[in-house]
Amino acid sequence: MNKVRIGMIGSGYIGRCHAIAYAQAPTVFALKGEIVREMLAEVNPELAARQAATFGFTRSTGDWRALVSDPAIDVVDICAPNFLHKEMALEAIRHGKHVYSEKPLSLSVADAQEMVAAAEAAGVKTLVGFNYMKNPTSQLAKEIIARGEIGDVVHFYGTHNEDYLARPETPLDWHCQKALAGLGALGDLAAHIVNMAHYLVGDIAEVSGDMMTVITSRPDPKEPARQLPVENEDQASALLRFHNGAHGVIETSRIACGAKMGLTYVVTGTKGTLRYTQERMAELELYLHDDPAGRQGFKTILTGPAHPDYANFCVSAGHGIGFNDQKTVEIRDLINGIAAGDRMWPDFAEGLQVQKVLEAIAYSAEQRRWIEV
Amino acid sequence: MNKVRIGMIGSGYIGRCHAIAYAQAPTVFALKGEIVREMLAEVNPELAARQAATFGFTRSTGDWRALVSDPAIDVVDICAPNFLHKEMALEAIRHGKHVYSEKPLSLSVADAQEMVAAAEAAGVKTLVGFNYMKNPTSQLAKEIIARGEIGDVVHFYGTHNEDYLARPETPLDWHCQKALAGLGALGDLAAHIVNMAHYLVGDIAEVSGDMMTVITSRPDPKEPARQLPVENEDQASALLRFHNGAHGVIETSRIACGAKMGLTYVVTGTKGTLRYTQERMAELELYLHDDPAGRQGFKTILTGPAHPDYANFCVSAGHGIGFNDQKTVEIRDLINGIAAGDRMWPDFAEGLQVQKVLEAIAYSAEQRRWIEV
Amino acid sequence: MNKVRIGMIGSGYIGRCHAIAYAQAPTVFALKGEIVREMLAEVNPELAARQAATFGFTRSTGDWRALVSDPAIDVVDICAPNFLHKEMALEAIRHGKHVYSEKPLSLSVADAQEMVAAAEAAGVKTLVGFNYMKNPTSQLAKEIIARGEIGDVVHFYGTHNEDYLARPETPLDWHCQKALAGLGALGDLAAHIVNMAHYLVGDIAEVSGDMMTVITSRPDPKEPARQLPVENEDQASALLRFHNGAHGVIETSRIACGAKMGLTYVVTGTKGTLRYTQERMAELELYLHDDPAGRQGFKTILTGPAHPDYANFCVSAGHGIGFNDQKTVEIRDLINGIAAGDRMWPDFAEGLQVQKVLEAIAYSAEQRRWIEV
Amino acid sequence: MNKVRIGMIGSGYIGRCHAIAYAQAPTVFALKGEIVREMLAEVNPELAARQAATFGFTRSTGDWRALVSDPAIDVVDICAPNFLHKEMALEAIRHGKHVYSEKPLSLSVADAQEMVAAAEAAGVKTLVGFNYMKNPTSQLAKEIIARGEIGDVVHFYGTHNEDYLARPETPLDWHCQKALAGLGALGDLAAHIVNMAHYLVGDIAEVSGDMMTVITSRPDPKEPARQLPVENEDQASALLRFHNGAHGVIETSRIACGAKMGLTYVVTGTKGTLRYTQERMAELELYLHDDPAGRQGFKTILTGPAHPDYANFCVSAGHGIGFNDQKTVEIRDLINGIAAGDRMWPDFAEGLQVQKVLEAIAYSAEQRRWIEV
Repeated sequence: MNKVRIGMIGSGYIGRCHAIAYAQAPTVFALKGEIVREMLAEVNPELAARQAATFGFTRSTGDWRALVSDPAIDVVDICAPNFLHKEMALEAIRHGKHVYSEKPLSLSVADAQEMVAAAEAAGVKTLVGFNYMKNPTSQLAKEIIARGEIGDVVHFYGTHNEDYLARPETPLDWHCQKALAGLGALGDLAAHIVNMAHYLVGDIAEVSGDMMTVITSRPDPKEPARQLPVENEDQASALLRFHNGAHGVIETSRIACGAKMGLTYVVTGTKGTLRYTQERMAELELYLHDDPAGRQGFKTILTGPAHPDYANFCVSAGHGIGFNDQKTVEIRDLINGIAAGDRMWPDFAEGLQVQKVLEAIAYSAEQRRWIEV
Repeated sequence: MNKVRIGMIGSGYIGRCHAIAYAQAPTVFALKGEIVREMLAEVNPELAARQAATFGFTRSTGDWRALVSDPAIDVVDICAPNFLHKEMALEAIRHGKHVYSEKPLSLSVADAQEMVAAAEAAGVKTLVGFNYMKNPTSQLAKEIIARGEIGDVVHFYGTHNEDYLARPETPLDWHCQKALAGLGALGDLAAHIVNMAHYLVGDIAEVSGDMMTVITSRPDPKEPARQLPVENEDQASALLRFHNGAHGVIETSRIACGAKMGLTYVVTGTKGTLRYTQERMAELELYLHDDPAGRQGFKTILTGPAHPDYANFCVSAGHGIGFNDQKTVEIRDLINGIAAGDRMWPDFAEGLQVQKVLEAIAYSAEQRRWIEV
Repeated sequence: MNKVRIGMIGSGYIGRCHAIAYAQAPTVFALKGEIVREMLAEVNPELAARQAATFGFTRSTGDWRALVSDPAIDVVDICAPNFLHKEMALEAIRHGKHVYSEKPLSLSVADAQEMVAAAEAAGVKTLVGFNYMKNPTSQLAKEIIARGEIGDVVHFYGTHNEDYLARPETPLDWHCQKALAGLGALGDLAAHIVNMAHYLVGDIAEVSGDMMTVITSRPDPKEPARQLPVENEDQASALLRFHNGAHGVIETSRIACGAKMGLTYVVTGTKGTLRYTQERMAELELYLHDDPAGRQGFKTILTGPAHPDYANFCVSAGHGIGFNDQKTVEIRDLINGIAAGDRMWPDFAEGLQVQKVLEAIAYSAEQRRWIEV
Repeated sequence: MNKVRIGMIGSGYIGRCHAIAYAQAPTVFALKGEIVREMLAEVNPELAARQAATFGFTRSTGDWRALVSDPAIDVVDICAPNFLHKEMALEAIRHGKHVYSEKPLSLSVADAQEMVAAAEAAGVKTLVGFNYMKNPTSQLAKEIIARGEIGDVVHFYGTHNEDYLARPETPLDWHCQKALAGLGALGDLAAHIVNMAHYLVGDIAEVSGDMMTVITSRPDPKEPARQLPVENEDQASALLRFHNGAHGVIETSRIACGAKMGLTYVVTGTKGTLRYTQERMAELELYLHDDPAGRQGFKTILTGPAHPDYANFCVSAGHGIGFNDQKTVEIRDLINGIAAGDRMWPDFAEGLQVQKVLEAIAYSAEQRRWIEV
């Protein structure tokens, strides 16, 4: 079986999740390639060595450029801060590596276009870490829609809300700085729900957006008595029109008190409706309008072995799946894509498409009019 | 105690609810005036007589003009189809009657303005039947917001979705005709959620709306093989900016499969969040961000005697309240307003304000730009 | 139409609910008899007069014996404290009155037997106020079971938990005294769930019970520094065997923190399951095991006009019903039973049957063995 | 770091889960020993070899006796059918191996006693796979109880219901045969909820049980036209008395339509209540009776990094945990127990204690009286 040698850059929050997924994926799935945790890069050699040991990587480096140019690496897995995605990806592509990048793909459409073009020119494969669409439950939603069980989709409402910046006294960090994060809640969170809308409904044609920075300054982390300006939006909303004619709304916030993992969607069709919240990631609510009179209602389906990919984790329904399990499905797609040519999606082109929507929303909010994506 | 003599026009769906509320109100509340169910008008004398008997009215008439001009009537209660609200109200006002009208107040802003002006000129009192805000649970939401328990409101998401026209084979009725209904889902349903937004958050300053007629024609009720055009929107969405700076979104649909009484809201503040769905009308979910670490979460409060008006129905918490109980609170406000000068709200001015928002959404959808209310 | 002249004894908590139901019933239902709120008795003439005025009764008295012997009374409605039910009912029956008594029917099986025998001998009709089974939602549950939609019932789990005595510092009241209340939580609360079990599944043949007085003494209401003994159980549980072979468990508590209206049931059949909680009294959850693979789940049915009695309150589904609406259905059964001979159930015989089960549980708990009912 | 060399017997349903947990544990936790997946035994060498490759074990064997006697094995992990647990464990202990066994520990109390005695005599460490108590959410429940946040526990209601045998046409399998399974639903499912009751509340002193075989015969898997008798119970219930004075009820069923992972509990204390269902394994509902009037209610806590062990999987709250994550916590306890002497619990002594309760319930059901454990 072909080896797929991974070079992972970054080992923080999401890097840890990737590492867990690499560890369990070969046991969960009959992969078409062998995962080799070859090298881990961090900001200095000591941290890199420590994290490589923790996460089961053979080699480590304090210089990500050494990783992307290493001949024994097949895939560069970018878990570094967002503002570095572009540079790292381009450099990896230049060395002929396949690239697996966390979302958002880049800080701007222009950057994402450059990345897509480079990958295409180099003929390398790409994958973006929109892991929520890999959840068996959202795959079930997709299946139900694709089979026409809820008819034609006429409306989509989606959110990705969290509350990690809800307190005004939380110091300023990179999320709030344009140079490091680009957009605020849109870039950090809404990227997921836009991808989900694409996955479940189709591409978005036009948007009318609005956004707001609620907490306009925050304490300087180094000098708490001093306030620094917040440079991007805390919350945003947008009306959507999809190419297929459906309408919709998406909303996002990083100050939505109480939303811990507030990716939610309601997909309304001509014959039924689906409701979902990521905080109950193993449940999908399905309503079918043709149910008999007096027996209509939303049915709570617990994800189980009758649904995509679930049985690989557990053979009994309702036993639950976790955050890292989604990532494990994503890793499966990565490995099978590279080792055996299976379709890898969402790729950089989708990452770009998401970025276009996000930027259109921000631009629409400034221009205060509808913008074509 | 002063008598408040009611003349009710119309006795269908909502008329029945008014009648039930009139019947129970004096037992539920210590009213400041005595309700006298004086006269009921229907489309013909026979139906009027039958319904008067059913609903406990002393007299009846097949001619609403006789009712509004009858000297023994203090309040004209308009439960007739929407397109008649204006004419009936103006005629009642002309005879010096107080007017209690079902929502929407009128089919257009121009009409509503005429009605407000007439009522003011005549010095009569008015009330509009936005009964959902009378629910003890939504009164509790208002109380929590007013006391600052969730901080300053920064976001409002509200819906009023139903599915009564979800089937394309349902024949065309007055809801779908501009001359009889004016707007579609906006006028019939969203009026409630706009009023709720006003009540909970404050007045809306600007909107960017979109709308869609999904089922563009329906069978002629008299000749089912023939299709007639649907003249107004099945669904609509709008971005909102409130005068106080909060942002928001409202959505409405009459084809939202599975939504039976889909008035819902999420009010996000700087310190907490409220969530509500009318389908669970005796529950309010409250999240407070200052709860201790590890003990945060949405708390489901069951409405009870510690909350406004509930104890009049039942002295134990969690025993439930029903649709008609909201209407009974509304009747209490009507009677106390007229008999004792208590504040009556939402009045025609609020009905007009709601109409302005709805019309601004529709106009915005046509113009495809933000519109000031 | 025949008049049905009501004499109501007691006007506290549940008396108020009766009064509201009498007020709205004629508007809600096309009754077969005319309700006449003839006379109200209270503990003294002043209170009686005041409450009669509030609740719309024509006459009043400070002496319940005057009421039960009054020739202008057809039905005696007993909303007085439990320990008086027997004496009042027997006296009413002696005067040939129909009797409508709140639950529990009596403090003991012996008393209930005497009451049943007296009513039968006198040929009067009886009704006991087990209102929860009148809820359209529980009527729907009954309908689903009766039609065999969930197959044969094999298991019933039911509770009636509340928390009104959860605080040890709450002073002793009549609930805690054997002479006034008989059993504790069993008599006050479990009576409802036993009746519900009878209604939904059938009669109970045998029980094995256990009970516990958690808070063994409480402050004397007149002299708070002094503790008085609690004489009956705070919580109880019992294994059940039904005559039809099904097994079950019921539980009850008056100190179950958080349970505000904790009447709940899960009815498991060979083909499906129903779940219900009174705190969401307009929802029934239905699971059918023959649903297609991958599409199984509990469906939340919102009660609506397709279900028994709902349409009389509101013609749209999901708009909700309240506590007093259940009571209004009960009043409908009372009036139609007396005026037109319709079946009146749960009658005194059922009240006795419930009492037998409760007493068997308490006896079983003392004897620590199974007891036949 | 010390190596902990695992020999796993059996690789079906639960074996797969163990394998996934072994794979991810070193990445999730900073373990005190190194996991070595040394050898896997299956029913024949071919299957063993295939599964060893799939699950990352170095060696394989078709003879479990070769595994338990292999000098390079430190821990024998028994994922074989229940009826083999005893023989395998005793044989492993005889060779001085630590033993990690799936539940139920054995088919009878006598067997379990023999196993406990053997392990104690040999001085080996033991662990039983009651993984549900390893869930961070149930650890949180334990923490809340231990800190006295809900006061003293006065009542426990717990279930472990599933519906895997709900269809009468499902052929007979080992679950239904006494020689292979011992008890039915009690042994297969209730073992978990009894362990959970021990964990959350304390040891059980006495029980009064009842049980029922609903589907008394099933098709012979080899000859479907022929029916074979079901030899053990489909469902069971029991009243409980805990040593600390709390009362309780547990129930179990393998034919409870709709229950996919129906381990649930309600723990009522003198000051508050906890509610949990494993089907929403990342949520705990907490009610505190001392919350202010009008602000009482069950709070839904989403498990997060403030709770035990969660942060090792993901640093953000509400992102979810899955079935195998519980198993991974269990593996952490195994490895740290063996490599560093950390406490390992639930051990064989607890497995025996659980078995005693289950057997007492079954015996009580036969004897129809209370039985001391």
